[in-house]
Amino acid sequence: MRIGGADEEIAGIIERINSFDDFFTTSSCSGRIVLICLPEIGAKREAKFIGKWHRAVAKEEVLEAIKSSEKGEIWLLSQSPILHVSCRGLEKAKTLLRIAIQSGFKYSSIKAIANSKDNGKVVVEIVSTERMDVPLGKDGVMFCSESYMDFILSKGNFMLERGKGKLKRFYYGLKEVEENLFLGRKG
Amino acid sequence: MRIGGADEEIAGIIERINSFDDFFTTSSCSGRIVLICLPEIGAKREAKFIGKWHRAVAKEEVLEAIKSSEKGEIWLLSQSPILHVSCRGLEKAKTLLRIAIQSGFKYSSIKAIANSKDNGKVVVEIVSTERMDVPLGKDGVMFCSESYMDFILSKGNFMLERGKGKLKRFYYGLKEVEENLFLGRKG
Repeated sequence: MRIGGADEEIAGIIERINSFDDFFTTSSCSGRIVLICLPEIGAKREAKFIGKWHRAVAKEEVLEAIKSSEKGEIWLLSQSPILHVSCRGLEKAKTLLRIAIQSGFKYSSIKAIANSKDNGKVVVEIVSTERMDVPLGKDGVMFCSESYMDFILSKGNFMLERGKGKLKRFYYGLKEVEENLFLGRKG
Repeated sequence: MRIGGADEEIAGIIERINSFDDFFTTSSCSGRIVLICLPEIGAKREAKFIGKWHRAVAKEEVLEAIKSSEKGEIWLLSQSPILHVSCRGLEKAKTLLRIAIQSGFKYSSIKAIANSKDNGKVVVEIVSTERMDVPLGKDGVMFCSESYMDFILSKGNFMLERGKGKLKRFYYGLKEVEENLFLGRKG
């Protein structure tokens, strides 16, 4: 789970979603580039974060962060914005899902549906397709060159920008819903 | 959409799912390593496949495939097994989703719910977290070294194996359901 903190871009969206009666956000991230160290291959859940940026990152910053890595594989990941929203009832969840997909978050889906009847809790995950998962090296030894690192960081930084553009579209998508008075407001 | 063909590992699963009254598969892939050429950054939908392997791949094969690339970025992707299953009704979809997640397909979700009432069509996507998305070069120029390619291919091949192990678990998970006579059978 990625909990918002310095994620300014997403703050307006969270505020808007939480202003509706039938929605609340449970986690969020505006997109990020991370450097992780995996103690063992495939065990991403045990990953240690050795670098985390919600903005464009420079090679020097990544190289500096790598110095603090321990034994294990080092991966550089570029991750899409992500939002988890708890919705009251399936129909509201489907509305949110539609808006998210129309805004460019094409990998969005329903992650869980509570077992209660009609108006149960439904968790929608909002996420886009932009993604990069690159293994860089192992046990402190980098298998890639610095010029290759320049190349992948330019991709990662570009994806980050693209994700932020989609967040803007999603924000305005939510506004439309609001204007159409489709959903009740809190307070 | 990835349609099964040479995907032997997944054939038994497809057969089993389609033997149930309330399920049918709409697309599937047992996991693969692909080499794509993107005419423009970020436009993954316009990607041209220049290599596709449902088994462990050797560096020589990848290098050979790269020769046929055109103008654009070249990416190597390692993709999880994927299955799309159309389910009759939400409860059946949730059962399938639970089995998939328990079998290790932790990114599985509900992708779409038809607009009809209780027994509408629900599409479940079954997919795991194993994934690698590595940019290699641009316009025929490789930005990574051959030894780096060895490294990422060892990761990709390992992920492929892991995915096939999960398919086995999922197959036996489905068998359990069948034995418990939880779901009706066709014919």
